[in-house]
Amino acid sequence: MGEEEQTEIAMPGNIVLIGKKPAMNYVLAVVTQFNGGAKSVKVRARGNAISRAVDVAEISRNRFVTDAKVDNIAISSEELANEDGTKSKVSAIEITLAR
Amino acid sequence: MGEEEQTEIAMPGNIVLIGKKPAMNYVLAVVTQFNGGAKSVKVRARGNAISRAVDVAEISRNRFVTDAKVDNIAISSEELANEDGTKSKVSAIEITLAR
Repeated sequence: MGEEEQTEIAMPGNIVLIGKKPAMNYVLAVVTQFNGGAKSVKVRARGNAISRAVDVAEISRNRFVTDAKVDNIAISSEELANEDGTKSKVSAIEITLAR
Repeated sequence: MGEEEQTEIAMPGNIVLIGKKPAMNYVLAVVTQFNGGAKSVKVRARGNAISRAVDVAEISRNRFVTDAKVDNIAISSEELANEDGTKSKVSAIEITLAR
């Protein structure tokens, strides 16, 4: 690989972190990364945003990056510190799309 | 194992469909199926319940059925008919836990 490709292509783990915005905002981010030469994009979310992450992956792959496939899906539990010092467990998902 | 267990064990696809109840209700259903002899349990959800499905899988596997692993996770899009006759696409997930 040439040096000019290093930024996009050499990074196997382009990540889109899903928050509370509408799904299409994150779909745009996924599509932009693929159009920039990424071979794979990871869609990550925690808690209630997990449903949106699945929407983002499905919309991206069905409507915009139709040659992308779901390469892997991993779920996990993460421990978060609350403001009062207690800890909560929250589920997380990472969906890897690859073309 | 006796014949009365056949109903559980012969069914490779024991399914728990996630709705709007608290996650622990569904965790109990998953644990009950494993305790009844099931080798694998599928946790299914659509739309906003997807996040809860991940919670159910994580809680079941980390706290109650600690020898169970995530065997497979599949995401898909389903088309639902609205009450006014229009159609909406909704994302779905199926998490297969197996011991």
